[in-house]
Amino acid sequence: MDNILTSRRYKNECTVVDLKTCRIGDGSLAIIAGPCAVESMDQMIYLAGLFKKTGVSIIRGGAYKPRTSPYSFQGLGEEGLRILAAAREQTGLPFVTEVTDVRYIEKVAGYADIIQIGSRNMQNFSLLREAGKSGKPVILKRGFSSTLEEWLSAAEYIAAEGNNKIIFCERGIRTFEGYTRNTMDISAIPAIKELSHFPIIADPSHGTGRRSLVGPLAKAAVAAGSDGVMLEVHENPPRALSDGAQSLYPSELESLVPALQVLHAACSSLRKTAV
Amino acid sequence: MDNILTSRRYKNECTVVDLKTCRIGDGSLAIIAGPCAVESMDQMIYLAGLFKKTGVSIIRGGAYKPRTSPYSFQGLGEEGLRILAAAREQTGLPFVTEVTDVRYIEKVAGYADIIQIGSRNMQNFSLLREAGKSGKPVILKRGFSSTLEEWLSAAEYIAAEGNNKIIFCERGIRTFEGYTRNTMDISAIPAIKELSHFPIIADPSHGTGRRSLVGPLAKAAVAAGSDGVMLEVHENPPRALSDGAQSLYPSELESLVPALQVLHAACSSLRKTAV
Amino acid sequence: MDNILTSRRYKNECTVVDLKTCRIGDGSLAIIAGPCAVESMDQMIYLAGLFKKTGVSIIRGGAYKPRTSPYSFQGLGEEGLRILAAAREQTGLPFVTEVTDVRYIEKVAGYADIIQIGSRNMQNFSLLREAGKSGKPVILKRGFSSTLEEWLSAAEYIAAEGNNKIIFCERGIRTFEGYTRNTMDISAIPAIKELSHFPIIADPSHGTGRRSLVGPLAKAAVAAGSDGVMLEVHENPPRALSDGAQSLYPSELESLVPALQVLHAACSSLRKTAV
Amino acid sequence: MDNILTSRRYKNECTVVDLKTCRIGDGSLAIIAGPCAVESMDQMIYLAGLFKKTGVSIIRGGAYKPRTSPYSFQGLGEEGLRILAAAREQTGLPFVTEVTDVRYIEKVAGYADIIQIGSRNMQNFSLLREAGKSGKPVILKRGFSSTLEEWLSAAEYIAAEGNNKIIFCERGIRTFEGYTRNTMDISAIPAIKELSHFPIIADPSHGTGRRSLVGPLAKAAVAAGSDGVMLEVHENPPRALSDGAQSLYPSELESLVPALQVLHAACSSLRKTAV
Repeated sequence: MDNILTSRRYKNECTVVDLKTCRIGDGSLAIIAGPCAVESMDQMIYLAGLFKKTGVSIIRGGAYKPRTSPYSFQGLGEEGLRILAAAREQTGLPFVTEVTDVRYIEKVAGYADIIQIGSRNMQNFSLLREAGKSGKPVILKRGFSSTLEEWLSAAEYIAAEGNNKIIFCERGIRTFEGYTRNTMDISAIPAIKELSHFPIIADPSHGTGRRSLVGPLAKAAVAAGSDGVMLEVHENPPRALSDGAQSLYPSELESLVPALQVLHAACSSLRKTAV
Repeated sequence: MDNILTSRRYKNECTVVDLKTCRIGDGSLAIIAGPCAVESMDQMIYLAGLFKKTGVSIIRGGAYKPRTSPYSFQGLGEEGLRILAAAREQTGLPFVTEVTDVRYIEKVAGYADIIQIGSRNMQNFSLLREAGKSGKPVILKRGFSSTLEEWLSAAEYIAAEGNNKIIFCERGIRTFEGYTRNTMDISAIPAIKELSHFPIIADPSHGTGRRSLVGPLAKAAVAAGSDGVMLEVHENPPRALSDGAQSLYPSELESLVPALQVLHAACSSLRKTAV
Repeated sequence: MDNILTSRRYKNECTVVDLKTCRIGDGSLAIIAGPCAVESMDQMIYLAGLFKKTGVSIIRGGAYKPRTSPYSFQGLGEEGLRILAAAREQTGLPFVTEVTDVRYIEKVAGYADIIQIGSRNMQNFSLLREAGKSGKPVILKRGFSSTLEEWLSAAEYIAAEGNNKIIFCERGIRTFEGYTRNTMDISAIPAIKELSHFPIIADPSHGTGRRSLVGPLAKAAVAAGSDGVMLEVHENPPRALSDGAQSLYPSELESLVPALQVLHAACSSLRKTAV
Repeated sequence: MDNILTSRRYKNECTVVDLKTCRIGDGSLAIIAGPCAVESMDQMIYLAGLFKKTGVSIIRGGAYKPRTSPYSFQGLGEEGLRILAAAREQTGLPFVTEVTDVRYIEKVAGYADIIQIGSRNMQNFSLLREAGKSGKPVILKRGFSSTLEEWLSAAEYIAAEGNNKIIFCERGIRTFEGYTRNTMDISAIPAIKELSHFPIIADPSHGTGRRSLVGPLAKAAVAAGSDGVMLEVHENPPRALSDGAQSLYPSELESLVPALQVLHAACSSLRKTAV
């Protein structure tokens, strides 16, 4: 059963997702940054200031966290949404947060500028349909063992509800390699651009699971044509309630963002000179 | 974060899931059979008669089908549940059907004897919790790229709601091999028995995706200690609305079930003589 | 480029590899047992006695060991071959040993009854050709990430040299699962039998890497139609110079072999009654 | 068994492999280009001219080709080596070619400037040792399902023979994804640099198997810190005797090489400003 609405054959021109303060898919580079889970108001006030100053375009943060174990920290829930809204207030930057349950979509969509469907829910078809119906921009993460074909079909569920504000997010696939948490499939970036008109961003934090590899893989994603990069940042990674090992220190974000921008500018001018 | 309630260290004795007409995990062999998707009342009346005669213990059939593409047949919904209930009426056999959406759990649990959480939803944690709360026996299929550790953690979500009627179901994992639809991980059967006190069954239909391999792999599962086998059967596989290539013909079921029973008896007596 | 000589389409009748004292592929069950690496004459004399008594058909043992690290024990070399020959003398049982280097094929073929091509060399095409030219029976292990197609093509290299004494050996493939050393692909057994006329055996020792899983997977392989089972056995596994964690204790072998024979007899009579 | 000689802990300073006309690992970018298999003198004369003009640093070409099927084109053998030597004569550029058999190492090392150990032979330990003894620079491709640990151990076999002219080459690993021939593991580039002092290059031609993805992945490799890029180029890809689908057209090479150089320069100056 072929995909239709998401296909480059259906629409050749690139779709741009417009968030007013920034546009994803128009050739610019979106920087999305934030903690894995929102932990407190103080944290987000501090980080929001950092993001504003650093040139981040979109804030991310988890309020409802899908965790492998029922005994792990599951997020602050609606309190987390309120904190994210306060960070938006403070900075003027839009925010994205994950939704994991069809019953909370309306609530999450009421707060967030973008809703995220996580890897574990990439084939939660009810959730995809409801995300489609919400009319909100949707970041659709790749399932950690999903083929490109299955990923496009998941997006088709959203698009079939009349929602054409889809942003793919490559975040690593599961392989035999144990040094990294996942294996970042950088080839998915140009491949999705061949197959679909929707933009694609990269999440090297989950893709590698190691702080030291986040920078090199973020650069690789930009060089391969990614429309944006999603970075986990924590004010004190060793104390993070989740994903500390892959979270950047604030100082690392401050040096990485301008580097990505320089690289993106170099790549853009190469593209213009037809290379 | 370790698992607790599902662990063999927590409870050494095997848990038996009692369905009145049969028990899973007590050393007997449960045969679960049915079409991938329930297609019509006529179909189920025919198949139910076949199952009763063949010695099948539990009927399976999909009413809500999670399909990769939004344009594929998605199941008959509640009509499918009613048809399954009629098959139960006719035969006295319990039935299992999949639930894919938290909003339908109550409805599905109202009809079904066992609810199934499919591979794509193995880490749909809201669904796991609600399945736990329903108090119904739950067949928990392994995610197609989930580790044993993640699978046990998913079960822990169910058990943490006070539900100890969990049945694991190995249905193949995703590998590089393309000859089979998935790679049946037979070693998961004895491994889960080492790690957990809950029973485990095998689904060689999804595990192989090829009719000709279903029999050999069903036998392998029984020899490895599986508490049951789940088989897709269709009255006319080439016309099945889904999964025809892996569905057995009625005549194949009629010869396979007694073969599995003979094999199971041989394995049981070997175990008793301490091998 | 399709395979020819190894294909079931080329020759429909099953090929039987005749070793005089036993035949592989004729419907009987070959039991191949021995230590991962031959460590000493005393060891092999003890084990050979055990094997003779237990009903083992073929002795296995490594003289030239391919080891991941250059600093691991690499085998006794020709001394190992002489020890294996002594074990054959003592028992009348044939032996198989691995060859890893084209320069040693003549020497190894001079001692051994069967030569083994290991997983790491499944696509060492020079070695395959020379093994073919040797005219000796060849056990061809599956590369740990080789498709069935590639495996058949590797066998085609042997067959193209006029050698039709090929025995496939499934020994587990590499997946994301970390509980087992490899994932035993039991479906490869009936699949190879569909695709090729050559016999196939299974190696659950390497396939699982865990002593406790060797028995269940050996039984699964037999139930799935395997022509033989290869088992690592050591007189004192915790002291083994390689692969101790997956080696059976002598007492485990003594109880497993008769169990496999009972199971094989049950499966054979099922096949005769056309199931 | 830990690795020693290849470890960054053993030697902190980066090892540079000096080929006189270029150096690999000193912060420069090596461009290695050539056809998959050398097909004729005319071909190489034409391509050698192209490479000289384009700024290629090293010529590659296969004389002994490891092919999955015995019936595929296996390379020109020594005639191929002579043609490559003529291309070196013409251009002053060094060349690399693969060796697949210990018996040909001396011959290949007599012609080539660098010898390549291919993916299928990454754990052909005899070949690794002989390549080590040859004293020649060695490009060691990653096995298509080898962990970083196993790859480093394979290099340790070369280094243990006193050869410290090792160049790692990431060429894609095997995953479930079928859109690309392999999945290019870009994270292996910074990871190997963390773990070892030897240089690493990338082969996006084999890594993707699709011409359209070679450019984006070559750029990604450069951005991630690769010391070089290996590119398959053919004067007429649809007519190539092997790997045509992933071979660049001459005009594609002419535009890609300067783009990679611009990108590399941008990355180098970012590194100098401590980002």
